[in-house]
Amino acid sequence: MVAKSELKRIRSLHQKKYRIREGQFLAEGMKLVGELLDSGLEPVGLYSTAPEELPGSQPITEGELRKASALVRPSGVLGVFPIPDPEPLTFEGWTLALDGVRDPGNLGTLIRLCDWFGIGELLCSPDTVDCYNPKVLQATMGSIARVRVVYKDLAETLDASGLPVYGASMEGEAIGGEQPLSPGILVMGSESHGLSGPVRDRLSQTWAIPSFGRAESLNVATAAAILLYEIRRATRK
Amino acid sequence: MVAKSELKRIRSLHQKKYRIREGQFLAEGMKLVGELLDSGLEPVGLYSTAPEELPGSQPITEGELRKASALVRPSGVLGVFPIPDPEPLTFEGWTLALDGVRDPGNLGTLIRLCDWFGIGELLCSPDTVDCYNPKVLQATMGSIARVRVVYKDLAETLDASGLPVYGASMEGEAIGGEQPLSPGILVMGSESHGLSGPVRDRLSQTWAIPSFGRAESLNVATAAAILLYEIRRATRK
Repeated sequence: MVAKSELKRIRSLHQKKYRIREGQFLAEGMKLVGELLDSGLEPVGLYSTAPEELPGSQPITEGELRKASALVRPSGVLGVFPIPDPEPLTFEGWTLALDGVRDPGNLGTLIRLCDWFGIGELLCSPDTVDCYNPKVLQATMGSIARVRVVYKDLAETLDASGLPVYGASMEGEAIGGEQPLSPGILVMGSESHGLSGPVRDRLSQTWAIPSFGRAESLNVATAAAILLYEIRRATRK
Repeated sequence: MVAKSELKRIRSLHQKKYRIREGQFLAEGMKLVGELLDSGLEPVGLYSTAPEELPGSQPITEGELRKASALVRPSGVLGVFPIPDPEPLTFEGWTLALDGVRDPGNLGTLIRLCDWFGIGELLCSPDTVDCYNPKVLQATMGSIARVRVVYKDLAETLDASGLPVYGASMEGEAIGGEQPLSPGILVMGSESHGLSGPVRDRLSQTWAIPSFGRAESLNVATAAAILLYEIRRATRK
């Protein structure tokens, strides 16, 4: 039995303003909650419809779960965690940066991609969707536990890094050659506007994904997948 | 002014059973409707809040639009089109096949990817989400007008094709080498179950996307993006 006021407080974490006010976020599902616990994050609260399967959790009924959950089909496990303090970026190896990505599913998929390709740091412009949004967390499939997401002004941060900045554009150089690459920051633009002016001004190199058909563009997550794959392929040897 | 009964009929096309019964589908937004018209498809009905901007359309009010639209923010243009008759697959060049992909956003992104990489035919297992689902259409960004989507039993169709069948699996051979590739059929599995048994039995070759981190898997659309990119890269020379 979870108190009504507690359910209401958990539910408020669906919204960014309450996440900021409380300094906490809500994670759902055994996979995501499990990976956050594995990463060493201390939960503020754990709730499960089968508490014997999740040590330290308190029981929650299906009805209570529906009141607190952000999912259409709640999966039986809720965790409330503190939002980690922002840490400084280290810029080790490659960094991915996002310039105004708005779609939660896209951001989640991009975080999962970073985890796959061993990119530990994701730099986001302040107008990128919040990484603790429940839809983002769900789409990361647990990878949020291993990728550090930092929100910062892009132009300033790119300048301060002193690293080469790579961006994608239809007018860029076709990727897939055997050119050597210095590790740096790959910036992906927003779904509707691409890269902003200040970021475009800072590109050391622009890349194009060769097209063989008539689509005008690629979804930001699929474009990033190809570019991260190519970075790893070209520098593997 | 659009009659209530007509709005109700348009709205019914949000559901697959009514699309099948009527043999029609609903497209929304100037880009998608425009690309379908450009492809030569004859509309059954065209509706616009600014009919002077869309020849052949009849006026529709914002209120009527909200009643007929499948979008949270309707974009002012609706088109009702006949579902094209199924055409036989030609298997020219590369074909993409999907084995039980359920998420509408993923299917739409995959259709857009086919269009980008010049893959004209997409073979889908009967349990793959319907390509005329409004969310699929929206995610194709108009590419549905240029990619032929065919629903057929996969095992039978793969056998009948006589072509090499390629699939992705964690245990496959790492892609990115310089091995020659014969054109064939690339099969992607469902989000939750991967490739089904009968399809796995028919693979000529299984590929793995090299991983550099700890994510257990990639989203189906991002994995397909990398594999299609690699196919084009490896056969470009």
